[in-house]
Amino acid sequence: MIRRFVFGTMIETEAILQKPSACMDSLPYLKCSEESLSFSYEMGETDRIYGLGENVRGINKRGWIYESKCSDEPEHLEDRRSLYGAHNFLIVDGRETFGIFIDYPGILTFDIGYTRHDQMTITPSDWNLDLYLIEGDSLRDIVRQFRHLIGRSYIAPRWALGYGQCRWSYMSADEVREVVKNHRDLHIPLDMVYLDIDYMERYKDFTVNEETFPNLDKLVEELKEEHIRLVPIIDAGVKQEEGYSVYEEGMKKGYFCKREDGTPFVAAVWPGKSMLPDMLNKEARDWFGSQYQFLLDKGIEGFWNDMNEPAIFYTEDRLKEVIEEIGTFRGQNLDLDKYFYFTGLVQGLHNNRDYYKQFYHNIDGRQIRHDRVHNLYGYQMTRAAGEAFERLVPDKRILMFSRASYIGMHRYGGIWMGDNKSWWSHILLNLKMLPSLNMCGFLYTGADLGGFGSDTTEDLLLRWMALGIFTPLMRNHAARDTRRQEVYRFENIDGFRHLIGLRYRLLPYLYSEYMKAVLRYDCMFRPLAFDYPADPHAAQVEDQLMLGEELMIAPVCQPNADGRYVYLPETMKLIRFKENGSIEEEILDAGHHYVKVALTDVVLFLRPDHLLPLSQGGQYAEEIDFEQLSYLSYVKTKAVYEYYHDDGCSRDYENPAHLSTIIIDTEGNVTIE
Amino acid sequence: MIRRFVFGTMIETEAILQKPSACMDSLPYLKCSEESLSFSYEMGETDRIYGLGENVRGINKRGWIYESKCSDEPEHLEDRRSLYGAHNFLIVDGRETFGIFIDYPGILTFDIGYTRHDQMTITPSDWNLDLYLIEGDSLRDIVRQFRHLIGRSYIAPRWALGYGQCRWSYMSADEVREVVKNHRDLHIPLDMVYLDIDYMERYKDFTVNEETFPNLDKLVEELKEEHIRLVPIIDAGVKQEEGYSVYEEGMKKGYFCKREDGTPFVAAVWPGKSMLPDMLNKEARDWFGSQYQFLLDKGIEGFWNDMNEPAIFYTEDRLKEVIEEIGTFRGQNLDLDKYFYFTGLVQGLHNNRDYYKQFYHNIDGRQIRHDRVHNLYGYQMTRAAGEAFERLVPDKRILMFSRASYIGMHRYGGIWMGDNKSWWSHILLNLKMLPSLNMCGFLYTGADLGGFGSDTTEDLLLRWMALGIFTPLMRNHAARDTRRQEVYRFENIDGFRHLIGLRYRLLPYLYSEYMKAVLRYDCMFRPLAFDYPADPHAAQVEDQLMLGEELMIAPVCQPNADGRYVYLPETMKLIRFKENGSIEEEILDAGHHYVKVALTDVVLFLRPDHLLPLSQGGQYAEEIDFEQLSYLSYVKTKAVYEYYHDDGCSRDYENPAHLSTIIIDTEGNVTIE
Repeated sequence: MIRRFVFGTMIETEAILQKPSACMDSLPYLKCSEESLSFSYEMGETDRIYGLGENVRGINKRGWIYESKCSDEPEHLEDRRSLYGAHNFLIVDGRETFGIFIDYPGILTFDIGYTRHDQMTITPSDWNLDLYLIEGDSLRDIVRQFRHLIGRSYIAPRWALGYGQCRWSYMSADEVREVVKNHRDLHIPLDMVYLDIDYMERYKDFTVNEETFPNLDKLVEELKEEHIRLVPIIDAGVKQEEGYSVYEEGMKKGYFCKREDGTPFVAAVWPGKSMLPDMLNKEARDWFGSQYQFLLDKGIEGFWNDMNEPAIFYTEDRLKEVIEEIGTFRGQNLDLDKYFYFTGLVQGLHNNRDYYKQFYHNIDGRQIRHDRVHNLYGYQMTRAAGEAFERLVPDKRILMFSRASYIGMHRYGGIWMGDNKSWWSHILLNLKMLPSLNMCGFLYTGADLGGFGSDTTEDLLLRWMALGIFTPLMRNHAARDTRRQEVYRFENIDGFRHLIGLRYRLLPYLYSEYMKAVLRYDCMFRPLAFDYPADPHAAQVEDQLMLGEELMIAPVCQPNADGRYVYLPETMKLIRFKENGSIEEEILDAGHHYVKVALTDVVLFLRPDHLLPLSQGGQYAEEIDFEQLSYLSYVKTKAVYEYYHDDGCSRDYENPAHLSTIIIDTEGNVTIE
Repeated sequence: MIRRFVFGTMIETEAILQKPSACMDSLPYLKCSEESLSFSYEMGETDRIYGLGENVRGINKRGWIYESKCSDEPEHLEDRRSLYGAHNFLIVDGRETFGIFIDYPGILTFDIGYTRHDQMTITPSDWNLDLYLIEGDSLRDIVRQFRHLIGRSYIAPRWALGYGQCRWSYMSADEVREVVKNHRDLHIPLDMVYLDIDYMERYKDFTVNEETFPNLDKLVEELKEEHIRLVPIIDAGVKQEEGYSVYEEGMKKGYFCKREDGTPFVAAVWPGKSMLPDMLNKEARDWFGSQYQFLLDKGIEGFWNDMNEPAIFYTEDRLKEVIEEIGTFRGQNLDLDKYFYFTGLVQGLHNNRDYYKQFYHNIDGRQIRHDRVHNLYGYQMTRAAGEAFERLVPDKRILMFSRASYIGMHRYGGIWMGDNKSWWSHILLNLKMLPSLNMCGFLYTGADLGGFGSDTTEDLLLRWMALGIFTPLMRNHAARDTRRQEVYRFENIDGFRHLIGLRYRLLPYLYSEYMKAVLRYDCMFRPLAFDYPADPHAAQVEDQLMLGEELMIAPVCQPNADGRYVYLPETMKLIRFKENGSIEEEILDAGHHYVKVALTDVVLFLRPDHLLPLSQGGQYAEEIDFEQLSYLSYVKTKAVYEYYHDDGCSRDYENPAHLSTIIIDTEGNVTIE
């Protein structure tokens, strides 16, 4: 049951398209205090809190304070309060069990046992919001109800579940060709090369640097012959430059965000001084979306939207002030306080909160200050793209994922988990975000494998891949000035080929699970507690996940480890994919195990009376035969799998012909119905 | 067996006082390449590398590149290459087993499977060093030989094993009194309050702010009546200020570091422009050491030396250049590269490597550029203090620990683990550094409990305490502008009282183990592999430690956890100290266990035929009766403990009367011999 409680008059987010009528009951569970502008809840000693989408820390979010404020935050540390997304959905599980969604476009905090261990306090910046209270039969049921409420998640083309390679600093078409050639020559599967900002002409959206990437349409065509797709980045900020048509047209039409007095708000990002398209203005959004045509026309079929929190390096005005003020320090003795103030001037240029109070959106004719609707910006940018694709290429699925997001955006694109680091701890963070994001509707997701910032190592990349092969978005991505981390840079080519090859063998299953989770408003990845609510230890497990109905995964997240502890809530079959191609199977009893996992092994755990379909593999998604399958199974009486299979590119999602049932009996006979 | 291999002519570090004569054998194990200026070693597939003292990452250091370069590094992240210490001792354990110590005062790197998984490469900045190669019967034997070579570790007064409270921003004597009062009123034991920089007059070493800390000698006396000792900080940099006697005298005598042309090198730290005493010049060192008299005269009995990497906020010259250059950005459009350059100007002020090439030491009349001897600075500052204490108060132990260090410094003081954070991951980092530091001679050590930087939480502090009660230095310390974290700020006072109270019950054992480790050149904390070399899983364990001959510890390092996995290499007795004062005992078989540990439980694991003495507890170290002991034991045939007990303050360490043997037989009869 979902009840909607209305507080004040919210600024519309369109997270929910069909709203239930406002509930006049008094709000259950939560204490609501208009004086302190907050909702509070007394948690039981062992209550768990699930949700909050893209965030730091555990699957169980208890013990910290989180701020819903889309942030360009490259340090995904446990003391951060915000990452790129604002996902105001959580589930309390314990003494009482219920879900909450706060539909509110401004900044709010969730103090979940930070100030007081047993207290949860939710504090919005003002008192205009809708609160949805969701009760259900189970954690999973609560999620499903919520997901129905917010609408069907974005569906990626099937090729987008292939393996992609990216680096901030692929500086030319030839460098891209070299990446492709190295993968193909070494028989390491590859479907995509992502283009970071360097393909553009001086970081101008919807331009191509003709010197370094001449004739992009030809390059796209050439790579398609290799079954590789180019996926370029699009940034939120539009360069301020006379003669640049996107800038000029946007200015002429008044589509950029403005200061209160109506003058342009100039914020700097990659190109320096830039304008922020008013993504919250429907007309401007349509206009921005139409710009993607420039790249669609060149044969591009996928994009990633970046810097759309929006990130702001500096504003024209603030930079000027800071430079002036720094001049006044000339000849001074800077002690502790003065020195910190001095360095703070420069550190505070980047993404300063004050900027968000300095510009306005035009929402249906009303001027709304940005901070009140901050969390919608990336959402509406991606919606601009998603709605444009429906207009421009209605019969085709276009790959789209974003950095910033709000619930509602899940209908238009996926997200990647942002600018993580080459840290072992970020394998685990990747794992922990998966179920939380799935709860909030983000199914096409994954982290930058190997880590974006800082230097990776071969063993880190191998272990991370062993998780990454399960995530719908599987991308190796690294920042400029870090160690090169294309897999062919390392010695253990066989190991990487094995891991990425296994991804392609798993594709029929992963795509089927992804589609079923979308169409059934379900989670592809779940905490163990969702599937084993009666098992008190299941709620303790923060480094394993359920995948589909079939599998439990438990990647190794530590260096120099020959294995890891795994908790089995029931008897399962351990399946080990070894680098030499062999597959070992072993039944393990319920309980705690130390499971050895060699550096290039992949282990997974198959539940009783379930099966796992495998393809024969291939070098790219289109080479995979989704019908010639082999099976791994753990049959006690009868293993049944509901297999979703379509052409992977058209939009006829709900056709029942896409579903078949695969049955394996105790004799090993396979029946397909 | 220890062999010394001489390469070029090293600048003397005095890490080793009695050097074995140079060995003329060819260097075993390592390939030595004069062209690439490096030593290399081919590691076996599962070889472990132990050592490197204060550092990030695992007990097994394999898989990363470390730089020995004492660094003011507040971000103890897994991608950092240096922390505050330079501890060039490591042990290879695997196909071959041997220890290496590189006695070299300059900057060097240890690439331990970073570039290539199976390759270790050690690269000094030049080719003037002594390399010691140590072979032995066991890992522990190698350590003991090395520790004999480098000399006996510093011995702290026994009261320094009490609990201490610190915060950067205790702004007045009254604030200190309040801290003491709160502990005493709530019966939370306390022995020390540490003073961070705020007690000084404008951050000038060996001054006291008379307005906020009037009559420090009286305050010291008053607190001693409460059995509390004040432990002030001393910084490396001396404020440049006319009329300040330490500055004036140092200038007059030429005791500060100079530029090549003999002009003063002005570097800024807390007070702004400051001078760096030439700690490597024996005369200057004696002079600096004598300054501690100022505080000894006020009754102070302990100090901590900080900022002695040395940290440099900026140099006078560089700050001027940066301010000028920033002025040239006026009116420019800063795109990506220009903006990063601009912000880099300011970010690069702090601890810029170039500074270390701009000043010189006077070592026995030779001018030596700082970077060549960088890693000795903190060591020689602490030696200045240690030698002064021997001169000034020869009959008394003075508490001394430092931030920066080099091997050799362990004879003069301990270290704390630097400016960590309120992160769960830093509980584990604290644990991992303990054995590595012990190997390098640093026995009086511990981390800032609850975390120095960022905001702590009650559960984090509770769990961290459950490790901290075992470390010789047990200090709760937090930075300015973070959440207050004195234990009485939280709700669970009973829990904190229980944990800190248990520390005091453990004091007889901990002090005895600390003293035995010092006097026997042994490790108080050891990786499991040191004690169970034949157990292949023991080498995998990165979150448990052996403590003394008796105990294994395994703290909980995760939030929201009701327990953790523990590996027992042999049958042990689990001892659980519960908040209600009860002690539960249970025999656990060798192997893997999931052990439940409530938030205020302390569990430890007692080895067979060993015993643990406990005091009755007390509110401060001097209240502890070290002779009225009770015992926990796990007797199979006979439990024997060698107990070290002295007065805890004088220097008659080696007196055999300090040792007794406690024996418990199968009937539970206790005999003391």
